[in-house]
Amino acid sequence: MTETPPAHLFDEATRVTAGDSRWQGRTSPDYWAFVGPFGGVTAATVLRALIQHPQIAGDPLAVTVNYCAPIAEGPFDLDVRLVKANRSSQHWCVELSQGDANAATLATAVFAERRPSWSHQPAVKPDAPPFDQVKRHPDAGMSWTKQYDFRFVEGRPEFGSRSDAPRSAYSRLWISDSKPRKLDCLSVLSMSDAFFGRAFHVRGELIPFGTVSLTTYFHVSREELAAEDITHVLATADAKVFNRSYQDQHGELWSPSGQLLATTTQIAYFKA
Amino acid sequence: MTETPPAHLFDEATRVTAGDSRWQGRTSPDYWAFVGPFGGVTAATVLRALIQHPQIAGDPLAVTVNYCAPIAEGPFDLDVRLVKANRSSQHWCVELSQGDANAATLATAVFAERRPSWSHQPAVKPDAPPFDQVKRHPDAGMSWTKQYDFRFVEGRPEFGSRSDAPRSAYSRLWISDSKPRKLDCLSVLSMSDAFFGRAFHVRGELIPFGTVSLTTYFHVSREELAAEDITHVLATADAKVFNRSYQDQHGELWSPSGQLLATTTQIAYFKA
Repeated sequence: MTETPPAHLFDEATRVTAGDSRWQGRTSPDYWAFVGPFGGVTAATVLRALIQHPQIAGDPLAVTVNYCAPIAEGPFDLDVRLVKANRSSQHWCVELSQGDANAATLATAVFAERRPSWSHQPAVKPDAPPFDQVKRHPDAGMSWTKQYDFRFVEGRPEFGSRSDAPRSAYSRLWISDSKPRKLDCLSVLSMSDAFFGRAFHVRGELIPFGTVSLTTYFHVSREELAAEDITHVLATADAKVFNRSYQDQHGELWSPSGQLLATTTQIAYFKA
Repeated sequence: MTETPPAHLFDEATRVTAGDSRWQGRTSPDYWAFVGPFGGVTAATVLRALIQHPQIAGDPLAVTVNYCAPIAEGPFDLDVRLVKANRSSQHWCVELSQGDANAATLATAVFAERRPSWSHQPAVKPDAPPFDQVKRHPDAGMSWTKQYDFRFVEGRPEFGSRSDAPRSAYSRLWISDSKPRKLDCLSVLSMSDAFFGRAFHVRGELIPFGTVSLTTYFHVSREELAAEDITHVLATADAKVFNRSYQDQHGELWSPSGQLLATTTQIAYFKA
């Protein structure tokens, strides 16, 4: 038990180095999507630069990532700026760029001290058989999807079976790293972008698609998340409207014990 | 019909002047909340600076506003920056500050050309009697709440009647400007922050409360919104979890004709 395990691919893919206001990262071939890195890993890389920042205080509360342009394969810079610090919260702005080009990704993050308080959870964890009892979804064939173990309880994707009647946009599934990795705020953020495009589900086919803006809220402190000591979440995703080339998506990430860990929403481009 | 009407208070409260990268605005006593301007009007002021910007193109798609610190009564500067422009979308960053202080508000916005596409609306407009047939909620006593006409269909607030059993966090209501004003993207954004704190509803009492981060997505183009030609929306708001001093909120804004105009989510601080 004293052996040092090899780094998890997720930790390699989200590695950042040095810097006070300027950090460096590098795209990973292991988490590649259609035209650039999987957005969840980009978001997690931004968050890793923040949690490793010498000035950071508190827990991540809200992260918004605007995907401005595809990130090319290779190294990138992260310009990390503390916009405002209060007694119990911090507001950060991060720009990811490559060479002299304009930012490819623009993110904001709020960190806060999560003091004990009255608590109440009106939302109810959706029903699902345990992770072990649900069949793993066959590999969807992309580099990043190989890094996740998706186990659909409802609303599995059926691509390549297009019908004109729209199908349900709702999915409920377990998500784990393919190689199990104890969940932390980085992997929760990444998993919050790990749903297949709702347009794919509704139309039963792959179409040109890209997340434009993602917002994820954390509902537990890092300490509470660590205490769950888990490697998978029960996740739901749904969409309310597809109009004029854009769709919404909203989702929930639950611990097996029934704690709502995070909620997420995104708006995405589609061509159809 | 040729008479020039006096400016609507909302338009006065969100007025901005001049500037290419630097704009000016001023807080309005008409939209004042607990310790600063009503956040919806701040968001709308940021959006107004963008839609009046000479370089703007397309329709607002996604707006995120991080409320970093209270804004003091008086003038403020808006530092407006086009972070990245693509063929059909623009990514903006706006910082609101006063004097030499750090930013009090940090916002990002995505504008996009909303091309005609396949469309589909899985979400269903909630039931409600027409606006005219619902009683106006008595004035809640704050400056900004006077500027809105709230008509609760379900989940009206009952402050000052605290009970230990938590009540529903869900509300369904019509929202109009008190003095009717044709809806545009500015007022839709402002209304997306015009729900009473979910914690007030659940606890039946006012407690220290403040929105930390707000994200609103527009699901129609400005042209589609103008074609609705309406002065009120049917709105819903709910919360999933209250934990460690923060709560979420998510909401929908519907046109009377049944079009989902916008969805919104926010995370807010509470003390309880």
